[in-house]
Amino acid sequence: MKITVIEDILKANDAIAADNQKIFESKKLYVINLLSSPGAGKTTLLERTIETLHPGYRIGVIEGDIQTTLDAERISKFGIPVVQINTQGGCHLEANMIKKALDNLDLNSMDLLIIENIGNLVCPSNFKLGEVDKVTILSVPEGEEKPLKYPAMFRESTALIINKIDLISFTNFNITNAIKYSLSINPSLKIFEISCTTREGLDRWINWLKARVENYRSGIA
Amino acid sequence: MKITVIEDILKANDAIAADNQKIFESKKLYVINLLSSPGAGKTTLLERTIETLHPGYRIGVIEGDIQTTLDAERISKFGIPVVQINTQGGCHLEANMIKKALDNLDLNSMDLLIIENIGNLVCPSNFKLGEVDKVTILSVPEGEEKPLKYPAMFRESTALIINKIDLISFTNFNITNAIKYSLSINPSLKIFEISCTTREGLDRWINWLKARVENYRSGIA
Repeated sequence: MKITVIEDILKANDAIAADNQKIFESKKLYVINLLSSPGAGKTTLLERTIETLHPGYRIGVIEGDIQTTLDAERISKFGIPVVQINTQGGCHLEANMIKKALDNLDLNSMDLLIIENIGNLVCPSNFKLGEVDKVTILSVPEGEEKPLKYPAMFRESTALIINKIDLISFTNFNITNAIKYSLSINPSLKIFEISCTTREGLDRWINWLKARVENYRSGIA
Repeated sequence: MKITVIEDILKANDAIAADNQKIFESKKLYVINLLSSPGAGKTTLLERTIETLHPGYRIGVIEGDIQTTLDAERISKFGIPVVQINTQGGCHLEANMIKKALDNLDLNSMDLLIIENIGNLVCPSNFKLGEVDKVTILSVPEGEEKPLKYPAMFRESTALIINKIDLISFTNFNITNAIKYSLSINPSLKIFEISCTTREGLDRWINWLKARVENYRSGIA
């Protein structure tokens, strides 16, 4: 009974996600669904990415939070379009929330839309939003075994960012194991080792992202 | 419609949680529901707590994980009773899972039962398990504003552990703000600042925990 209800909810969500996807495709707009535990560094990665790419690339952001507009305030400082979604307790974004948010965004003047999901390593993986790629962040203090313990998110992502590598020497985090575990869940995962604090490794992420935007626009991705 | 379904699920859960609670009360067994984001240090706090209190206090553990028995393996090294629950994708423990787990635990030879929930700062707060106290861990790398962004968990907890304080000087975490934000959500929250790595602050947590066990046993708590 309960499972049927959840399946119905997921099916309804997938239908709206497919509609969103068609809209994005028609605009040749590359869209990322950005995922992680709370505090792994989604908003900080967004800040580093925007300050590097803006205004050469026209970026829009949808900020998902349970409460507060703290993250949207951080992003709006860059003078780019931002829409805040507050789920009021909800543990993940759903496609219909994105659909409504699109009313407040001019997709025609955008090369890249990043949707920052709720900080939650479990539930958001079940709900497609219409994105081209899921990108998951694993932060060093969370521990190397997280891909084994929370596999769904890692399985469905195109790219994994291992963030806060500046903290490795203060923890028992073994990055070789983290990469090995992640690839055991998803062998095609593109992995970036970065620190948003020291900016180490950010170049590779930015170059990959630029290539994804360009390839998607030209129909290759 | 969807809300009704969720309310029904919560109501059914609460009824089973009340049954669990009666069982615990009849044994004068103090039970904690231990909550946090993935990787905030729940299992490591358990290890530090067990190695300090065992065997003076007889401790049992229920380990909640989506997949793997990694955490139960870490705890079973102490030679105490451990039951692993694998939710197979589920984002939180529910009271019926605990009820089943109790079949495999001898509650008569136990002073303290700790239930380690799924690493998730959102969903577990909705599902009572029959515990006496919810204890939430916030780790320093997650950031000081998390109580504002994920208030439910902090609102419902008796105690908050701010863990990984050894990492404060390598981050922009302001502990005064973290405490201020937490108390703004829940003014009666008991807050402990600790590092499971350096063991700083563990004494206060252990002393509080001992007092809770004793007071509950003698009917004060």
